[in-house]
Amino acid sequence: MELAELQDVIERTYGERDRARGVSATVAWLAEEIGELAQAVRKGSEEQQLHEFGDVVAWVATLANQQGIDLTEAVQRYADGCPRCGTIPCGCD
Amino acid sequence: MELAELQDVIERTYGERDRARGVSATVAWLAEEIGELAQAVRKGSEEQQLHEFGDVVAWVATLANQQGIDLTEAVQRYADGCPRCGTIPCGCD
Repeated sequence: MELAELQDVIERTYGERDRARGVSATVAWLAEEIGELAQAVRKGSEEQQLHEFGDVVAWVATLANQQGIDLTEAVQRYADGCPRCGTIPCGCD
Repeated sequence: MELAELQDVIERTYGERDRARGVSATVAWLAEEIGELAQAVRKGSEEQQLHEFGDVVAWVATLANQQGIDLTEAVQRYADGCPRCGTIPCGCD
């Protein structure tokens, strides 16, 4: 699935409920998922990590939907390498 | 850019340096970026939000690269709607 498809399915699956809860609740939930990902990376199985990475990206997609942000456009800054120095590999200090 | 392309360009741009710093440093950096995103959502412009959403997804891609996780596979859990109840819209309590 591409980011645009993910944002679309997340909107159709959770959009109405997410909007009812509000943006602050989504930020809080994303923070919780980041904690779960940090734990999975430290001591989880590959399956658990796959699960938590999926959840984090899904919650980022939820927040992006609430804010009207296109994630595909957002990551485009990295398409040609480092956004600061513009090179691959990054040549920043 | 799709998630697989993002993971590839992030690997070529930052992979060597990221591996030298280690996984804990990436988790810490991701946490910092989540904080910046939370602030941008609360009081930032659309441009600032676009910037911070891009940074968060890029750091998730960095961490996924370090852990050998394919983000496209990770988000596939959401392809058919809610992974718990399996419906669109979500019917979980």
